[in-house]
Amino acid sequence: MLSQLRVKPGHAAGLEARDPADRLGVDRERDFGDDLAELRTLQDRLWAERRRSLLVVLQGTDAAGKDSTIRHVFTGINPHGCRVEDFAQPSTTELAHDYLWRVHARCPARGQIGIWNRSHYEDVIAVRVRSLVPAKVWRRRFRHICEFERMLAEEGTTIVKILLHISRKEQGARLRARLADPAKQWKFRPEDIEDRQRFGQIEAAYEEALTKTSTTWAPWYVVPADRRWVRNAAVTRLLLQALRDIDPQFPDVTIDLDTFTVD
Amino acid sequence: MLSQLRVKPGHAAGLEARDPADRLGVDRERDFGDDLAELRTLQDRLWAERRRSLLVVLQGTDAAGKDSTIRHVFTGINPHGCRVEDFAQPSTTELAHDYLWRVHARCPARGQIGIWNRSHYEDVIAVRVRSLVPAKVWRRRFRHICEFERMLAEEGTTIVKILLHISRKEQGARLRARLADPAKQWKFRPEDIEDRQRFGQIEAAYEEALTKTSTTWAPWYVVPADRRWVRNAAVTRLLLQALRDIDPQFPDVTIDLDTFTVD
Repeated sequence: MLSQLRVKPGHAAGLEARDPADRLGVDRERDFGDDLAELRTLQDRLWAERRRSLLVVLQGTDAAGKDSTIRHVFTGINPHGCRVEDFAQPSTTELAHDYLWRVHARCPARGQIGIWNRSHYEDVIAVRVRSLVPAKVWRRRFRHICEFERMLAEEGTTIVKILLHISRKEQGARLRARLADPAKQWKFRPEDIEDRQRFGQIEAAYEEALTKTSTTWAPWYVVPADRRWVRNAAVTRLLLQALRDIDPQFPDVTIDLDTFTVD
Repeated sequence: MLSQLRVKPGHAAGLEARDPADRLGVDRERDFGDDLAELRTLQDRLWAERRRSLLVVLQGTDAAGKDSTIRHVFTGINPHGCRVEDFAQPSTTELAHDYLWRVHARCPARGQIGIWNRSHYEDVIAVRVRSLVPAKVWRRRFRHICEFERMLAEEGTTIVKILLHISRKEQGARLRARLADPAKQWKFRPEDIEDRQRFGQIEAAYEEALTKTSTTWAPWYVVPADRRWVRNAAVTRLLLQALRDIDPQFPDVTIDLDTFTVD
């Protein structure tokens, strides 16, 4: 399942040909208890080992389900050693620096899992479709980003980049639900409508960004997100696979324990 | 149950009279599913409201169960809006500032729950028993701390300070287990033995610190921690009570939703 989600480095992302409502052969009734238990064990060891880290980048349009994914997939793992970072509109201090400054400052420390709710990719997506900087500025960022991520990877961070891919139709249904449900209305922002009018432009910007920044050291995965349970299953599997590949170990004991006694 | 754990402001903490093995009338077989569900709902609202925050300070000697408490009580809540901060040995940059600088920088933002694994209280406990600063320096810190916490409380942070209170006997059993169990040996540090030799001194330092810093705006609770299930139940109840008192609400909708339609 995971290989079909991957944007092959050097190839086009091909978003249009990917079905946001794909079921990926996932059994809706399957119990993910075992996966969660394995996730917890691996996370414990990652934290104990304190040598490597995992960075999960979550991108997607409004209502693609970023918050919901974090709630469903990451609730149930130990918050010790796991941090969610939101990259909303940059602050004035953040804008006074280059665009990678604020993300670099919030990279996961050794032993941690970092979950980024939006990221530096907004600087080649939102910034581009809203024309906040000239094309020549955002265009050269693809290279910065690939090289920045190469450095992180070579210094011990496993990077998993996920686009939650929803259809324009499903986005409409979710935004209408947001407007209608009193428990969700607070989430509604007028920008949601503006961004919806740019849906095609945003999709085109993602197509180029994913194509240019899916690398062997920091690959992109396109997760079909029209169905929440497929999305949650896919993200859980991606996380699990990444932690299995890291294969963290409890640290070696470097002191002679026999010399110590507890009275 | 919670009122008996509270160190009444203006009164002695009375640690010696408190039994670390107390069962507090907790039913070991009770299912905490409902409490956890309520916790999640309240946390969702706190995060949505983005006006107030909750700070949980966890203190205790080695092997008192700080890590284990975080794992048991906080796994199962949404890591979005919840962060664990570890205050281990200060870095050289941190030491170049006053002792409150590093904790202030890591206070929870509005909407967040901050869980502090150790805290500024080490600057009147560890620092005191290891004689890292003269008595006249640590003595005046009680006032700084009370006033710092008053400011945080008045600016919207609910503060719950918890001492995980274990007996010297139980600590010994846990340290022996740490030495004997290959999955726990990596946690052992020679300082654990040194600190154990100072158990009485540390307890005396806590007695004074709790007595001098339990305030109406930031009270201390002494949680009996010899039995893990009593400890977990008590910490869960403290957290739940704090969130109930905050009573966070979904934000009011300040825009006229009727003017928006989703195509």
